[in-house]
Amino acid sequence: MSYKSDIEIAMGAKMERISVIGERLGLSEDEMDFYGKYKAKLSLDILNKPSTKKDGKLILVTSINPTPPGEGKSTVSVGLGQAFQRMRKNAVIALREPSLGPVFGMKGGATGGGFAQVVPMEDINLHFTGDFHAITAANNLLCASIDNHIHHGNLLDIDPRRILFKRVMDINDRALRHIIVGIGGKTNGFLREDGFMITVASEIMAILCLSLDLEDLKERLGRILIAYTFDGQPVYCKDLKVHGAMTMLLKEAIKPNLVQTLENTPAIIHGGPVANIAHGCNSILATKMALKLGDYAITEAGFGADLGAEKFFDIKCRFGGLAPDCVVVVATIRALKHHGGVAKDQWNVPDVAALSKGVSNLRKQVENVKKFGVPVVVAINKFVSDSEKEIQFLKEFCSSFNVPIALCDVWEKRR
Amino acid sequence: MSYKSDIEIAMGAKMERISVIGERLGLSEDEMDFYGKYKAKLSLDILNKPSTKKDGKLILVTSINPTPPGEGKSTVSVGLGQAFQRMRKNAVIALREPSLGPVFGMKGGATGGGFAQVVPMEDINLHFTGDFHAITAANNLLCASIDNHIHHGNLLDIDPRRILFKRVMDINDRALRHIIVGIGGKTNGFLREDGFMITVASEIMAILCLSLDLEDLKERLGRILIAYTFDGQPVYCKDLKVHGAMTMLLKEAIKPNLVQTLENTPAIIHGGPVANIAHGCNSILATKMALKLGDYAITEAGFGADLGAEKFFDIKCRFGGLAPDCVVVVATIRALKHHGGVAKDQWNVPDVAALSKGVSNLRKQVENVKKFGVPVVVAINKFVSDSEKEIQFLKEFCSSFNVPIALCDVWEKRR
Amino acid sequence: MSYKSDIEIAMGAKMERISVIGERLGLSEDEMDFYGKYKAKLSLDILNKPSTKKDGKLILVTSINPTPPGEGKSTVSVGLGQAFQRMRKNAVIALREPSLGPVFGMKGGATGGGFAQVVPMEDINLHFTGDFHAITAANNLLCASIDNHIHHGNLLDIDPRRILFKRVMDINDRALRHIIVGIGGKTNGFLREDGFMITVASEIMAILCLSLDLEDLKERLGRILIAYTFDGQPVYCKDLKVHGAMTMLLKEAIKPNLVQTLENTPAIIHGGPVANIAHGCNSILATKMALKLGDYAITEAGFGADLGAEKFFDIKCRFGGLAPDCVVVVATIRALKHHGGVAKDQWNVPDVAALSKGVSNLRKQVENVKKFGVPVVVAINKFVSDSEKEIQFLKEFCSSFNVPIALCDVWEKRR
Amino acid sequence: MSYKSDIEIAMGAKMERISVIGERLGLSEDEMDFYGKYKAKLSLDILNKPSTKKDGKLILVTSINPTPPGEGKSTVSVGLGQAFQRMRKNAVIALREPSLGPVFGMKGGATGGGFAQVVPMEDINLHFTGDFHAITAANNLLCASIDNHIHHGNLLDIDPRRILFKRVMDINDRALRHIIVGIGGKTNGFLREDGFMITVASEIMAILCLSLDLEDLKERLGRILIAYTFDGQPVYCKDLKVHGAMTMLLKEAIKPNLVQTLENTPAIIHGGPVANIAHGCNSILATKMALKLGDYAITEAGFGADLGAEKFFDIKCRFGGLAPDCVVVVATIRALKHHGGVAKDQWNVPDVAALSKGVSNLRKQVENVKKFGVPVVVAINKFVSDSEKEIQFLKEFCSSFNVPIALCDVWEKRR
Repeated sequence: MSYKSDIEIAMGAKMERISVIGERLGLSEDEMDFYGKYKAKLSLDILNKPSTKKDGKLILVTSINPTPPGEGKSTVSVGLGQAFQRMRKNAVIALREPSLGPVFGMKGGATGGGFAQVVPMEDINLHFTGDFHAITAANNLLCASIDNHIHHGNLLDIDPRRILFKRVMDINDRALRHIIVGIGGKTNGFLREDGFMITVASEIMAILCLSLDLEDLKERLGRILIAYTFDGQPVYCKDLKVHGAMTMLLKEAIKPNLVQTLENTPAIIHGGPVANIAHGCNSILATKMALKLGDYAITEAGFGADLGAEKFFDIKCRFGGLAPDCVVVVATIRALKHHGGVAKDQWNVPDVAALSKGVSNLRKQVENVKKFGVPVVVAINKFVSDSEKEIQFLKEFCSSFNVPIALCDVWEKRR
Repeated sequence: MSYKSDIEIAMGAKMERISVIGERLGLSEDEMDFYGKYKAKLSLDILNKPSTKKDGKLILVTSINPTPPGEGKSTVSVGLGQAFQRMRKNAVIALREPSLGPVFGMKGGATGGGFAQVVPMEDINLHFTGDFHAITAANNLLCASIDNHIHHGNLLDIDPRRILFKRVMDINDRALRHIIVGIGGKTNGFLREDGFMITVASEIMAILCLSLDLEDLKERLGRILIAYTFDGQPVYCKDLKVHGAMTMLLKEAIKPNLVQTLENTPAIIHGGPVANIAHGCNSILATKMALKLGDYAITEAGFGADLGAEKFFDIKCRFGGLAPDCVVVVATIRALKHHGGVAKDQWNVPDVAALSKGVSNLRKQVENVKKFGVPVVVAINKFVSDSEKEIQFLKEFCSSFNVPIALCDVWEKRR
Repeated sequence: MSYKSDIEIAMGAKMERISVIGERLGLSEDEMDFYGKYKAKLSLDILNKPSTKKDGKLILVTSINPTPPGEGKSTVSVGLGQAFQRMRKNAVIALREPSLGPVFGMKGGATGGGFAQVVPMEDINLHFTGDFHAITAANNLLCASIDNHIHHGNLLDIDPRRILFKRVMDINDRALRHIIVGIGGKTNGFLREDGFMITVASEIMAILCLSLDLEDLKERLGRILIAYTFDGQPVYCKDLKVHGAMTMLLKEAIKPNLVQTLENTPAIIHGGPVANIAHGCNSILATKMALKLGDYAITEAGFGADLGAEKFFDIKCRFGGLAPDCVVVVATIRALKHHGGVAKDQWNVPDVAALSKGVSNLRKQVENVKKFGVPVVVAINKFVSDSEKEIQFLKEFCSSFNVPIALCDVWEKRR
Repeated sequence: MSYKSDIEIAMGAKMERISVIGERLGLSEDEMDFYGKYKAKLSLDILNKPSTKKDGKLILVTSINPTPPGEGKSTVSVGLGQAFQRMRKNAVIALREPSLGPVFGMKGGATGGGFAQVVPMEDINLHFTGDFHAITAANNLLCASIDNHIHHGNLLDIDPRRILFKRVMDINDRALRHIIVGIGGKTNGFLREDGFMITVASEIMAILCLSLDLEDLKERLGRILIAYTFDGQPVYCKDLKVHGAMTMLLKEAIKPNLVQTLENTPAIIHGGPVANIAHGCNSILATKMALKLGDYAITEAGFGADLGAEKFFDIKCRFGGLAPDCVVVVATIRALKHHGGVAKDQWNVPDVAALSKGVSNLRKQVENVKKFGVPVVVAINKFVSDSEKEIQFLKEFCSSFNVPIALCDVWEKRR
């Protein structure tokens, strides 16, 4: 049996016009700005309009410590949304936007996989609705303003050796990691060391994802610590009076984007701060929008539960006033065997002994999440190579410490 | 009497939904991709669909040698389109997109002025439909590929000191003009001198504006000369096999954008190569679209006629198979006085003597344009400070060498 | 009572012509090259000439772990030489040359102190006989050759990111620590990161001090590892065929320099590799020359015995075939109190309790040196603030583990 | 017939001890500092000691516009000195010191050629008496002080983009021409563009050669313009208070160096400012010393008479109070043919026609020099390829405008 690639499946998707998806969620045309036929930006006014519907239940998808290829959190999230919909429940998925970079690299996009994907995949993976470009522009406007300020007399007394805020680009560009700028004499300003990060690592990305509205965004942008003076005093973005212009550049980017899954379940894709240096979740506004529009809002947090879920609870939930109703901890049998000491090339070989060692990772992650006082369920993202014995072992293991387990074959199964 | 600023006028515009503007041009919803309510990208299929309508007349707006503030070519172009519409003629305007940079700088946008503007001004001046971001991304993908190629063994033997293709950013960033990249040891690649230009100066901008379709675009991208080898042999973009990915990044950017004027005249705004180093016109596709959809297509060329109109005829018309039916040479009385030797602070003082010296510039530009065998008309972009005597002098001057003249008060007059 | 400064004492020295000092050592005029009236370079032929005299006894001066101002190894070495001479013994001192840098900085020169100095101090501290300039020139010739090789086709396939050999300058120049070279286009070669070290840190300094003759020097220069190829293969100096020219630049620098102490005791000052990254002793040739010409050759090794004396035994003695007859371990009471926990501003206050704790440092250093099978004597470099009780304690302490101790007031006492 | 190379001839020289040469000039041992056996530095006191002898006659050797290999000014100068001596006249030659660089490059040293050389050639071409090393050290001490000043608070408000004074190295090092310094964060100071010149191009070299004594040198060093402030005000060396230390570094370098020719004629070799950017003559002190000690002082000026001799008269003579008694204009027949249009590979072919065209260069140079009111003689530096007809033509030509001519075969002829 041969499997279709993610791209083949995505290309064959029977999408509905995004206006139809929006209408099904009760949105008027005024509340949506279309970007082509299958993407729309959602007005922030939606969040404040009176509604007979209560906010939905919030479901967080997290995972054990992941192996390099990932354990399929996005896939399970998308699959879970589709499953609710098949059960005729009103579910809305809220996920991160992928970076432009990976499209041309080796990592898969962040749009799910198999028969559990969000579409239009290509658009989402390319420019989408321009959010990352807007963040790049706002970030680099601030950088240009810093150098410009120093060039024009440096009234703030910024020490060019202690500028913390770096330029960004939405592409992995090794040569720009560490650069020297300002070469070429007096008209080109002052020399200094600088570097480009990828856009998802921009502090502005993190800020956008934690902001509650445009005013809050502007306030937060103003508070960015950009440098120290020669006397060691902090210099903030607002000292350069550039946060207003930056906010203007982000006025569309702050609006969550509506797309759909392969099965036409609504999905809100918005924001993408990296999980290792920032908090790694989609925007608070996207999650709030999913809660407002759906009866079940499914969202995820980057990396394993010990990193991603903790940041989700400690940062995103506090800033956003969110309270999850359930946490799904995704695991794969191959990853648990990996944690049990099995080499990569043996992941597909049934090995209950290794599995029994690796499950300690799952147990600990579940225990940790339980401390937040939220119900937990384990989802096994099933691979065709998983053996019956291994599955049986896992079920018994979960039963033994009283956590429900569910097999999840959303990647493999179509309608 | 006090005048409203351009922004105040633009903010007060009574725009129609872009879908309405499109329908009036005979476009179906499938032929348009909406970007919000007042912008749309036009399908390239429109150019090839059978039509009962003949292509429109092509009117090129150019000017005398401009003074620093410009003589108002865009304003005259927009005003001309609005005038045709008031006369119940089907006119479509085709102009360049403005750069993101100027918004925060001192130069005015390129969206016309006064009561002759295209709208939504703010959107057009900010991210618009993302064309410049896509060009930036494609440009910088190529740059990253060059450095990446050198880093991974440099099979093509590229001399890092002779790389011609530079990175770009859609912002004026002095500090990035001359930089050193690749610092930081082996993992960051090889050091070399580089620099960022503004996006409108990217060769990809020029290419996009000269391409006839996606295939042609890809072909042209492949032919970009990016560097020389250590042996002095040329290296082309296609040698890196990255032109396919670059084309994918530009697949939406190649589509012309439909907006409207303050009086709801359709305007196609697309592409913006700088006029001093590239050819300085909007895209061939935008002009062809205006010809296909309108009975009168009004377009412009950057700088004075000796630079912009010549490039228009010699480059854009040849590549695009275009043949203008009429050329409008814009002049202002203050600019002609400037050419007659009047200092900037005296531009508003009536001075027929200076004017009579300065008109030699107008005469020469008109003579030059006439050599292309196209009818010429002079448009005087009227300022409130122009005196009757000066206007009378100009009329007689034009009459004396048989070129029609028209006073143009589109900036000042509302409906 | 007020003390003269080192400079005042040195300026007042009654030096003898260096020709007189040389003659007293049995040297002919042909065996000396004079550099002014008080410095001479000694011909290497001296080492090979037949002599009725046996080689002298070799005395190594080392110390406990030093405090920042140093414990006075050089002062004790010089004083010891002068003491031998007063006893009408034929002693020759062999010390390191000081760096040019410190003259203008805060650290004292390395020419001893008080009434135990080598002179002419100013000459020795400035250009002396040009040895460090020659090393600088040889070092930088190699560097220029590396960049030149890469510029002219790089036949050796040197990876410019993996060049190990750095430029040097005989001055502390902060701004040159980390630089980028080769900027300015094709004619200026390839960009790369580089840096300047101080000359005493040059590998060539270490090599010069370990070489047995000019041929050996050339051979060792050729073996310098300068870089790696793109394939990770080592590239040596001799691959560039520049070691011959480097040797020519060093043909005078390899010859030991003869000067005198304040009491006209002959002193051979030659070579100065830093003790933290190299072996920190004067040249093997200088020590051999002192052994050849004197009945007692007194030399020293940088830092404490655990670093300097170990390197002296393990590196210099092995390469040079040397075998010390006695080791002097210098200590000061203030340093031992420092090791016993006393703060700097209390060093002058008598404190036997602290001293009794700090002596463990002295004990361990002496024990370590004894493992080399050489007789050890402790020299207390006396300060005017040392109390009788402290001195008495130290004497008893040394007696308790059977190591002779000597009070040393060479700094203070004149003839 | 085969010719010995310059090196072979120099190696075979029968040098006298420099003490003997000095004694013959009436110098006591106190007035000389020996640097080995064949070099001595001369005390500046010599210039001021009472003497029964009047100052000698000053003869300047200059040339027509030179061809790339040079026309042999140094060779003629040395030969002229030797010729005087053979005539039992007391002549002293004063020439420039050669740069260390050329030794390893293709250009010949500046020590004359054939049988008209100064010796010991190798020493003179290598470190000589350390003058250039001292200039390098003083130059780079100033540079380090500038960066150090900026690092420590920049009280003088120096604009790091407008520092005029560059580092130097006595080697041609392409990679150092344009560099960036100060990389590596706060502890390494501020980034700025800098570059290394060769030592002979240092302003300190020019200053040393124009100074009349140590006090004058210090004064001149203090007046070096090193940078501009942010406000465009000049900053001088003395503002950094480093000119005293620089002077100390130059206290030996200021003393002229005594060597000898192959025929033991005394030669004073001192200073070597480049002729294209500085004045291109040996030091004023060296020329004064030659006048003091000899009855005939023979010196030269770099490049052709229109550049070198003019600078000699306008700069060196004025600052030094010198007045030449005779000027020798050196020409070669091959160079005159070159000026007459003959290609390099035909220089050896007799061609009177070309010669008759090229002599206009000689005529103009002679005319120019005559304007200084000094007697002129033309010296033809003879090559074995010169034909009798050509020589005859030249003689008649010089006779025709009343300038004496002399054939000069000093290169070829031995005693």
